[in-house]
Amino acid sequence: MPKIVDHDERRREVLSAARRVIVRDGIDAATTRAIAKEAGYSNGVLAHYFADKDEILLSALRQSHQRIRERLTRKTEGATGLAALRELLLDNLPLDAERTQETRLEVSFWSRSLASERLAEVQRAEAAELRDAVRTLLGEARAAGELTTDENLDDITERLLALVDGLSLHLLLYPGRLARVDMERLMLSTLDHL
Amino acid sequence: MPKIVDHDERRREVLSAARRVIVRDGIDAATTRAIAKEAGYSNGVLAHYFADKDEILLSALRQSHQRIRERLTRKTEGATGLAALRELLLDNLPLDAERTQETRLEVSFWSRSLASERLAEVQRAEAAELRDAVRTLLGEARAAGELTTDENLDDITERLLALVDGLSLHLLLYPGRLARVDMERLMLSTLDHL
Repeated sequence: MPKIVDHDERRREVLSAARRVIVRDGIDAATTRAIAKEAGYSNGVLAHYFADKDEILLSALRQSHQRIRERLTRKTEGATGLAALRELLLDNLPLDAERTQETRLEVSFWSRSLASERLAEVQRAEAAELRDAVRTLLGEARAAGELTTDENLDDITERLLALVDGLSLHLLLYPGRLARVDMERLMLSTLDHL
Repeated sequence: MPKIVDHDERRREVLSAARRVIVRDGIDAATTRAIAKEAGYSNGVLAHYFADKDEILLSALRQSHQRIRERLTRKTEGATGLAALRELLLDNLPLDAERTQETRLEVSFWSRSLASERLAEVQRAEAAELRDAVRTLLGEARAAGELTTDENLDDITERLLALVDGLSLHLLLYPGRLARVDMERLMLSTLDHL
């Protein structure tokens, strides 16, 4: 009897393995061989599911974003405007172990994207989605009279997103200087002053 | 007659070559071989000046920071408080070709530092220097009555530095979304609201 292979399951396993290697050893170390070894498959099996290393890396990034989106949908259920925006922005900060791993993955992709137009395109598309979500919630907040600032909403959006990435990066790079509690306080006080 | 070799000049040439390779092709592509080729030297000559690739990369980062420091000293000469802070923060944004290359170099090192404690240590030391400079200027600004906010200066410092790195990153990653003029406006309006 032929062995029944769950192809979706295998793909997910390979992508989880890729994420673990990137987060643990850095994106440079995430070779096809290292990912195959971590997943417990041969290079041949990987080649069956993914055209090349870039496709594995891109799929791993997309899979991570999909998990974030699902978690966020749960967290913001029923919320609108400033309350939903607060949840969304805090969720994007490395405030626990799971999100710290997600942030390490993102930071790893930033520099790689500067050298690869294919990765950069995916990052731009995913980032545009987050930008639109923030902009929409700011619009709701203003319509509901929750904002005191009259600054234009596109500018506020860009500033908030820059702050999220900057704080996240600094927490990873300078753990002795910035603690999670500081990062959360800085983000919340920024929102309180909108 | 033996050829007279200017060793300092050779070291600088190798480091400039390393910077060009990182900025153009990404930090993954900056192998000892690629750097030697770019500099027009043999691998043996490189080995004479640097113990390994990490030492070349670290020296290239330090050389870049030294150039930034010298430029900044010229720009802030005679200025104090908020005026000097404005110069310092704007100088850290990729507002022209030279600073865009510097920013690309920084972003390349971020992810590499997450996987290398040796690089991370250097980054932390250099970042601490910038942090102290911002904190000192904010102290001068408050003492001179230039700030309206009563928020604590350490928090303002961290927020400004996060904003600098976040905006710089987004300009490189999302050039169609954020232009230099937007980035400059966002930074200046942030300072105006202090």
